[in-house]
Amino acid sequence: MKNKQYLLAKRPIGTPTADNWDFVETDVKEPQDGEILVKIEYISLDPAMRGWMNDAKSYIEPVQIGEVMRAGTVGYVVKSKAEGFAEGDAVYGHFGVQQYATVSAKGVHKVDPSLAPLERYLGVLGMPGMTAYFGILDTGQPKEGETVVVSGAAGAVGSVVGQIAKIKGCRVVGIAGGKDKCDFVVNELGFDAAIDYKSQNVKKALRETCPNGVDVYFDNVGGDILDDVLTQINFKARIVICGAISQYNNTTPVKGPSNYLSLLVNRARMEGIVVFDNAKNYGIAAKEMAGWIAQGKLQAKEHVEVGIERFPEVLLMLFNGENFGKLVLKVDGE
Amino acid sequence: MKNKQYLLAKRPIGTPTADNWDFVETDVKEPQDGEILVKIEYISLDPAMRGWMNDAKSYIEPVQIGEVMRAGTVGYVVKSKAEGFAEGDAVYGHFGVQQYATVSAKGVHKVDPSLAPLERYLGVLGMPGMTAYFGILDTGQPKEGETVVVSGAAGAVGSVVGQIAKIKGCRVVGIAGGKDKCDFVVNELGFDAAIDYKSQNVKKALRETCPNGVDVYFDNVGGDILDDVLTQINFKARIVICGAISQYNNTTPVKGPSNYLSLLVNRARMEGIVVFDNAKNYGIAAKEMAGWIAQGKLQAKEHVEVGIERFPEVLLMLFNGENFGKLVLKVDGE
Repeated sequence: MKNKQYLLAKRPIGTPTADNWDFVETDVKEPQDGEILVKIEYISLDPAMRGWMNDAKSYIEPVQIGEVMRAGTVGYVVKSKAEGFAEGDAVYGHFGVQQYATVSAKGVHKVDPSLAPLERYLGVLGMPGMTAYFGILDTGQPKEGETVVVSGAAGAVGSVVGQIAKIKGCRVVGIAGGKDKCDFVVNELGFDAAIDYKSQNVKKALRETCPNGVDVYFDNVGGDILDDVLTQINFKARIVICGAISQYNNTTPVKGPSNYLSLLVNRARMEGIVVFDNAKNYGIAAKEMAGWIAQGKLQAKEHVEVGIERFPEVLLMLFNGENFGKLVLKVDGE
Repeated sequence: MKNKQYLLAKRPIGTPTADNWDFVETDVKEPQDGEILVKIEYISLDPAMRGWMNDAKSYIEPVQIGEVMRAGTVGYVVKSKAEGFAEGDAVYGHFGVQQYATVSAKGVHKVDPSLAPLERYLGVLGMPGMTAYFGILDTGQPKEGETVVVSGAAGAVGSVVGQIAKIKGCRVVGIAGGKDKCDFVVNELGFDAAIDYKSQNVKKALRETCPNGVDVYFDNVGGDILDDVLTQINFKARIVICGAISQYNNTTPVKGPSNYLSLLVNRARMEGIVVFDNAKNYGIAAKEMAGWIAQGKLQAKEHVEVGIERFPEVLLMLFNGENFGKLVLKVDGE
């Protein structure tokens, strides 16, 4: 059996290009004791992947040159030599950008494809959903009647953040790129308003859509939008730093928030989050979110692209703002 | 009786210059019912004054053109028409940059010149001391054995922050400008180490003096030093934003911290403080700090310049890093 894989060939400078990758075919390895062989169905494409490509100290080790590119994935067990896993089990793990993975069963989680489509376990029922849940609730601490603004509002994390804030009784304003995404977050997800950063003056639009100021800002994008929101925050506002997708492909230094002294004027807080810190409470979050989904309060949207060979170009859709909902790559076309 | 006053004549662009001020002589006003007449002895010079000169939304109203420049001050009551105040009482209040003030007794606090020299009520026993106390303890939350870094370490706030962190059992590293200040914070105040930002590479010096990383950073300066510290922070670090004196006279936009994504990587927090929020607990802080002073654990240092007419040039000493300890202006030479 053959296995197509994307290896990191070279560290990118700026936006990743074709020569950062090696697309290779290798033999599938037989699982040893304690291991399973997984056929990967869907690969998660996440902004954080860009950071993993850098040789820089971060919250997780960089991907090494010559290694399979790290990615969250879902698939089916095709052979098991590990207790608790059987052929046909649907599983989630960081199996990487490849068709098959032979891995230790440690850190692999079973998922239930009868409850939700498999790809949803990469979105609202997976890491993006967990990121949104703990980020907005534990760090953002939204209170009923407060105004919550979220950037990347039509994305995997932002769309869930906004819906949870609505459930908590907040006024929710999403920032997204383009009319379709803005219509989606208002009409489909129930946000109170949306700002199209591509066609609107964000600062002016914030003043109009947040007449009482901003109490919580959940930031996925950084850059000018973070600076614009900083001009509109309230006393004791909370800014959750989840990401800064506008800055990840910079070849110049990251744009720091010039308006950060608004934190001082408003006695406000800016705090970074990484989802893995909440691992021991994933179960609690999953249960509560499943309840919201069942009640129709929490919508999921995935954006599925097809064909593992297209990985390099599909990854770039994230940075070009082309994805609409959680971006996943289906490994094989039918 | 005549009263010399500094009025704000024009809003500054960049560093304040002579033409931002009108130095005038007016008649002293008689106090009316509920008012007192105060002869001002010492005027506090604080970095925040630069912000009050701007016509910008902040935590306090800007000083208006033609108004006496706002300043914290101490002096003696020379005439009282207010209950609870008598001639000869030593008092603290925002009486402004002038020789005499006729003011409502509301918001005026009596101080005790037998316990400490009058000017000390503008330093460790006044707003800078309160800022340090609540900023480091409530927002910085230093724990025994942690590493605390403070910039402006020889200044009014920084010197107290570092000493309180030492009392709490932390390793304390101060950042200051020049050998004299660095020697002072180590030899006189008991800091574990000091970094001279004028002659040292701050990032390298931080690695050397903080081998276990930085748990709490108390920032008075902003700019490149904030960015350097951000590269050395630990998991769950706390950054207290008290000021950004390096940026207050900018004519270009404030330099935002390019390394702010270190907050994400380290799940760290950056939070702004303004001392006035703690007004109802000033008494608790004053009592505890008085105890530390009595036990010799907390040292005070004031830098006294003389002559109200010199106010414009003395104010600039703050921004040039020329003051050594709490900068105050003695109104009259003897």
